[in-house]
Amino acid sequence: MNVQTARSHLHETSDLTLRFAAVRALSAALAAPLSAEDCCAQSMPDASPIKWHLAHTSWFFETFILERFEANFQPHHPAFRVLFNSYYNGIGDKHARAQRGLLTRPSFAEVQAYRRDVDARITALLAQPLADAAHAELAGLLELGLQHEQQHQELMMTDVLHLLWCNPLKPAYCASPHPVSAAAGELQWQSFKGGVVQIGHADTGFCFDNEMPAHRQFIEPYALASRLVTNREYLAFVDAGGYQNPAWWLSEGWDWVQTQQLTQPLYWRTDDTAARQVFGLHGLQSLDPDAAATHISYFEADAYARWTGARLPTEAEWEHAAMQSSAAGATARHAATELKQLFATCWQWTSSSYAPYPGYATAAGALGEYNGKFMSNQYVLRGSSCVTPEGHSRATYRNFFPATARWQFSGIRLAR
Amino acid sequence: MNVQTARSHLHETSDLTLRFAAVRALSAALAAPLSAEDCCAQSMPDASPIKWHLAHTSWFFETFILERFEANFQPHHPAFRVLFNSYYNGIGDKHARAQRGLLTRPSFAEVQAYRRDVDARITALLAQPLADAAHAELAGLLELGLQHEQQHQELMMTDVLHLLWCNPLKPAYCASPHPVSAAAGELQWQSFKGGVVQIGHADTGFCFDNEMPAHRQFIEPYALASRLVTNREYLAFVDAGGYQNPAWWLSEGWDWVQTQQLTQPLYWRTDDTAARQVFGLHGLQSLDPDAAATHISYFEADAYARWTGARLPTEAEWEHAAMQSSAAGATARHAATELKQLFATCWQWTSSSYAPYPGYATAAGALGEYNGKFMSNQYVLRGSSCVTPEGHSRATYRNFFPATARWQFSGIRLAR
Amino acid sequence: MNVQTARSHLHETSDLTLRFAAVRALSAALAAPLSAEDCCAQSMPDASPIKWHLAHTSWFFETFILERFEANFQPHHPAFRVLFNSYYNGIGDKHARAQRGLLTRPSFAEVQAYRRDVDARITALLAQPLADAAHAELAGLLELGLQHEQQHQELMMTDVLHLLWCNPLKPAYCASPHPVSAAAGELQWQSFKGGVVQIGHADTGFCFDNEMPAHRQFIEPYALASRLVTNREYLAFVDAGGYQNPAWWLSEGWDWVQTQQLTQPLYWRTDDTAARQVFGLHGLQSLDPDAAATHISYFEADAYARWTGARLPTEAEWEHAAMQSSAAGATARHAATELKQLFATCWQWTSSSYAPYPGYATAAGALGEYNGKFMSNQYVLRGSSCVTPEGHSRATYRNFFPATARWQFSGIRLAR
Amino acid sequence: MNVQTARSHLHETSDLTLRFAAVRALSAALAAPLSAEDCCAQSMPDASPIKWHLAHTSWFFETFILERFEANFQPHHPAFRVLFNSYYNGIGDKHARAQRGLLTRPSFAEVQAYRRDVDARITALLAQPLADAAHAELAGLLELGLQHEQQHQELMMTDVLHLLWCNPLKPAYCASPHPVSAAAGELQWQSFKGGVVQIGHADTGFCFDNEMPAHRQFIEPYALASRLVTNREYLAFVDAGGYQNPAWWLSEGWDWVQTQQLTQPLYWRTDDTAARQVFGLHGLQSLDPDAAATHISYFEADAYARWTGARLPTEAEWEHAAMQSSAAGATARHAATELKQLFATCWQWTSSSYAPYPGYATAAGALGEYNGKFMSNQYVLRGSSCVTPEGHSRATYRNFFPATARWQFSGIRLAR
Repeated sequence: MNVQTARSHLHETSDLTLRFAAVRALSAALAAPLSAEDCCAQSMPDASPIKWHLAHTSWFFETFILERFEANFQPHHPAFRVLFNSYYNGIGDKHARAQRGLLTRPSFAEVQAYRRDVDARITALLAQPLADAAHAELAGLLELGLQHEQQHQELMMTDVLHLLWCNPLKPAYCASPHPVSAAAGELQWQSFKGGVVQIGHADTGFCFDNEMPAHRQFIEPYALASRLVTNREYLAFVDAGGYQNPAWWLSEGWDWVQTQQLTQPLYWRTDDTAARQVFGLHGLQSLDPDAAATHISYFEADAYARWTGARLPTEAEWEHAAMQSSAAGATARHAATELKQLFATCWQWTSSSYAPYPGYATAAGALGEYNGKFMSNQYVLRGSSCVTPEGHSRATYRNFFPATARWQFSGIRLAR
Repeated sequence: MNVQTARSHLHETSDLTLRFAAVRALSAALAAPLSAEDCCAQSMPDASPIKWHLAHTSWFFETFILERFEANFQPHHPAFRVLFNSYYNGIGDKHARAQRGLLTRPSFAEVQAYRRDVDARITALLAQPLADAAHAELAGLLELGLQHEQQHQELMMTDVLHLLWCNPLKPAYCASPHPVSAAAGELQWQSFKGGVVQIGHADTGFCFDNEMPAHRQFIEPYALASRLVTNREYLAFVDAGGYQNPAWWLSEGWDWVQTQQLTQPLYWRTDDTAARQVFGLHGLQSLDPDAAATHISYFEADAYARWTGARLPTEAEWEHAAMQSSAAGATARHAATELKQLFATCWQWTSSSYAPYPGYATAAGALGEYNGKFMSNQYVLRGSSCVTPEGHSRATYRNFFPATARWQFSGIRLAR
Repeated sequence: MNVQTARSHLHETSDLTLRFAAVRALSAALAAPLSAEDCCAQSMPDASPIKWHLAHTSWFFETFILERFEANFQPHHPAFRVLFNSYYNGIGDKHARAQRGLLTRPSFAEVQAYRRDVDARITALLAQPLADAAHAELAGLLELGLQHEQQHQELMMTDVLHLLWCNPLKPAYCASPHPVSAAAGELQWQSFKGGVVQIGHADTGFCFDNEMPAHRQFIEPYALASRLVTNREYLAFVDAGGYQNPAWWLSEGWDWVQTQQLTQPLYWRTDDTAARQVFGLHGLQSLDPDAAATHISYFEADAYARWTGARLPTEAEWEHAAMQSSAAGATARHAATELKQLFATCWQWTSSSYAPYPGYATAAGALGEYNGKFMSNQYVLRGSSCVTPEGHSRATYRNFFPATARWQFSGIRLAR
Repeated sequence: MNVQTARSHLHETSDLTLRFAAVRALSAALAAPLSAEDCCAQSMPDASPIKWHLAHTSWFFETFILERFEANFQPHHPAFRVLFNSYYNGIGDKHARAQRGLLTRPSFAEVQAYRRDVDARITALLAQPLADAAHAELAGLLELGLQHEQQHQELMMTDVLHLLWCNPLKPAYCASPHPVSAAAGELQWQSFKGGVVQIGHADTGFCFDNEMPAHRQFIEPYALASRLVTNREYLAFVDAGGYQNPAWWLSEGWDWVQTQQLTQPLYWRTDDTAARQVFGLHGLQSLDPDAAATHISYFEADAYARWTGARLPTEAEWEHAAMQSSAAGATARHAATELKQLFATCWQWTSSSYAPYPGYATAAGALGEYNGKFMSNQYVLRGSSCVTPEGHSRATYRNFFPATARWQFSGIRLAR
């Protein structure tokens, strides 16, 4: 290692150390408004307790980094390897997902101590000199661990929101009221020419394996809505009997609506005066007509789109449009910049089933289970949401959930 | 109210006040070794969180006493009437039983405050002068509330034990080890002549409505085992393939054993060296061969009895024998006193389905739902257990659970 | 074997042979109005196809008699031992109950051939000289087989009725209309003194093991309704909102009513003009107000009784009253004969859980599974129904079904 | 209508009439080896009784053609509109899918009469002169009805096979033994260049709406296996512990394998001597190592492909290769013709989720429900199977089933 490399290492490591501290601190901050009780409960098998998220993200660093790089590695607690394994068969046994809410031990305080121990050990590891190859591997794994933790930061918010919703007291995560949205403005259609376009991650920044390899797809000409569907617009669908008419629904969606007796989005309810209320992180508030409709499932998004005579975009259409917009935005006042709410409002369902890109290959070992094994019976969402951590979004990002999932911040951008 | 009556009231009230304070304090003490997290979780729909028990027992006093007797009654919290209603349709809506573990709010601290408020208000009420009839009604309801709280004190122990068992860390409720039992001694058969005997509660002390009215039953001559079945004896059944042979089981029990893939009692497990361990309030310990086998379901108790060539007693047999024993015990060194472990070890399954006594009538109003509506598809257990509060047992007491219930301290006394 | 014994044998055998032929012929006659398709289908796991009943009753004779007594026994078909075993673990494997309707093979014609083969072989066996002990055993088993077949004759009717009900065409088993009932007359209360009475089968005729041993019970004074509850009376309960008010229901029954969304008895429906219709073996007809209400579950019977301020009888009360009535009827115009519809209308729910009589013992071997292993979580019904075969009823007979069973001809006789 | 048009009509009508007669006759012929009982039973909700298939295909002609074109249309039976409606919400109510096996009425004979009536009325309709537009519409609907009936002819075979498999007697649909396959030969890889290719139906023959519109897709270079995976090859996966190793499975597939305790394909079993047997229309026979592995689910196909280091093709790859092969085959001895078993052996899973082609639009009215509403959570299969009717296959045909479906004749063609 020559001087220049060493300096570069030093600089990069320092960045990584700072970044590590910042990301880890945010997870703790997100749990701060909650009690140990709040952090322990699990409202449904799809959601996890906050405490479990805090422990599992630490487990990820411990299992994939400390165990690999620490000399004389000793686990923080011998049982944690099983308790906080989410789904990695390559690591071994795991605690039953639906029973995560029964883990009153280790206590919240013990999990905080676990976090501090992992933080200290990772920081110490980063301060050590390492051979180039080892350093590159460590940096790669650390970045993956941080991106992973950021994904869980979003899930912490969606999962706690569901827990609070299940409570008849309807407690708010944030005491302050949610600001009312500005007028949404008329929906515009932005046209794109299509053709053979490049899809997938091609630059040097971080991406998950499912965004690669970059490859070509052919897209017919298409148009996307300039903004997301609003509560006002979605309410019109509800009031028009949308949940009572099978004509708008996929067959499987219609069965689901009937079995679950659904009549409106998750977190909507009607108060004693028949006024609509919506539950969110700020508690129960009047429906904000100009806000983007959110907590919508794929089946609902698809039905709404059909009712309007439009459709959902494919993920290639969405990505190509987002790329055009940002390129245009970077250079000129181009029409493509009309596209609003691509990021940071709510995830946008696409009509694309979650599938591997041509040439996709999983990593060797347990980390190969990160994304690839979930590529069946899920739909891709694009963009990001109001609870996605800063810096954790990009045009090529592929989020995915089953067609019935409603507890995410997921909404609708129409296409035609 | 003359002086003498007033004095008597004062005395009785003081007793009630003291007793109220003592019973209420015990509930709090039982929760003391546990964290707020431990007290919030619910391990299965049949069990309730400790916090819910603490709140519901307070709700009982608030709903059935404060609401009835307090001038200008104001509820402690308007939502608690629904949140902590267990099963009284006469009171109105109730929170879904299976979702009690999601009530992270009200917090444990808020529930403790709820208890203190109810305690203060009940104490104040007891200090007020009341007309005789009102006083008698109040005293009756208060006694019912205390007996009710004692029932929940036992459930707090059985429910938290199940929760701790579900945790792979197998944490102990009590840090100290459980003392090893003395040698059980040989099982003796104690004979009873039967005939037309009186069954049911006939003295002046408290009893639940299901113990009344006292009435006659004809019993054939019978014999009861002098002590409960031990772990050593039950293990012999397990080791003899008892859980693999349908010949010993009721048809419904055999289906249950196969569906649940049962091979031994709840809380038994085999460690890496094939040694049996048993989980209890003191944690995981070696099977104590001389201890009474407990956490046995009706189906298991019945199968074990059939394997030995004996049977379970009827509840009339058990009660008659217990009455004989205590009468004998009070007067002389009669053979009947050989009957050991009638109380305070574990509840004893009888072959009697839980049914109303001839002439049984429920109370008017919501309190009529206390016992009567559960008289189907459950079996009567007699005696009391190691976690039954002091003073909360008697020969006429009728406990009841479904034939598959295993999380209670329930064992086997044989009959023939 | 001397001449007299031989003659007695000949006489008795001839009787048995004739009786065997008659009972077996009735089963075939009951299937005659049905097609092979009708006889193959299974409408729910609790019910069996007609073809299966026809085969299983033959299997009973083959397995328990031919296999035991025939020299060089060869099974009619090697697979039938498993296919047509109902629930005898002692015999070995059995075809899954819920899949009986998938047995399109053996065909209906093949099952008829199976019946003819068993008939011929049993008849041949009866014609052979046997030692006294063997003859007595054979006669006993044959009688059991015939009683067993008679039980299945009733089930054939209840099961096919349920199948036809599931068909939107609502086809009738009998083409002719059901005769309208005569006026039911006012309900009278018939009093009984009770005391220590004898219960159970004590004479020399056939009975099932669960009717024995005869023993004593103490009964308080009680009264029974002179006739069964009519459709008119039960309709008043329905119209009074009986299915919407938890006050009348056992807790478990109320859960069931809500989960199943029940509003009236099985086989009742409301036509386009809001008139009540009832489905039966004669098809869909107007509700006959004077007919006994039938296809009532235990939970419904209990709720109805509570609504009227009465209760269901215990099985001892029912049996004692029936014994008194028949004794009285045989000797004089005694008041007890007022009791109508004891037999041949519909089975009458008692409040007694199905349990062994004191001293009850099962037979050795697989036949010991006939009754005893079902003695949990079922309720006893007494009397007999309109589809019980002639001669297959007596005052000590104990029928039993779970508290939710509705497809039997089961009704209500009130007690107080 | 001039003479030439009339002649052309006459010719075309005569063809349609003949074709109608031939297709309808084949359905009847497929049912010929079966009894009325065989034709009535339903082995699982996904499968339908043969009798129901025979009636539903007639219902299709009656509802969509006779009702539209017959003067003074009278339904064959007023209840059939509901009884034999499969899934068309636009037509109204439908009989519950899982209860199709309970329809012992109408009888098999009555359904045959229904078929004859529909046949006669359609034939009469075709003999009538019609205006050009009406004739074109009629011809289009008739062709759709015939294609629909051919789809059900395949389902009749797959559904009856499943029913016979559920029978412990394992009866054969065909008495004759299945011929043993010739040696499969070594698997070759056939390469394709890809690029922007045309996908979807573009010629003038019949196709379903889901094959349109023809459109462009970009495909990277790829290779397909020259033949399907054989039983020998799939057995190697089974014997290598393929069903016990999560590494090969999609996460959802692994859950399914474990929940269902799967160890091998549907219809495989191991006899007493540990030899593999496979059940088929010819009954239970020894595993034919050179035959194509069939009755494989998507999850199994995907796991097998991953185990070999290959993958499943996309539907575009499959279609492009099939088009190339047939074009090449028509013109020259081109390498592409190496592709064997494209049709008539078993359907081939693709990795493509079933989704609408760009620009896809459903027909107006109830027929719009034919395909489009099923476009979620299913995977596309290409080719055709040994039970696909002659003439009912083409390179653009899109079959589709859920990822767990195993009762179809579905196998594996590898890609890389």
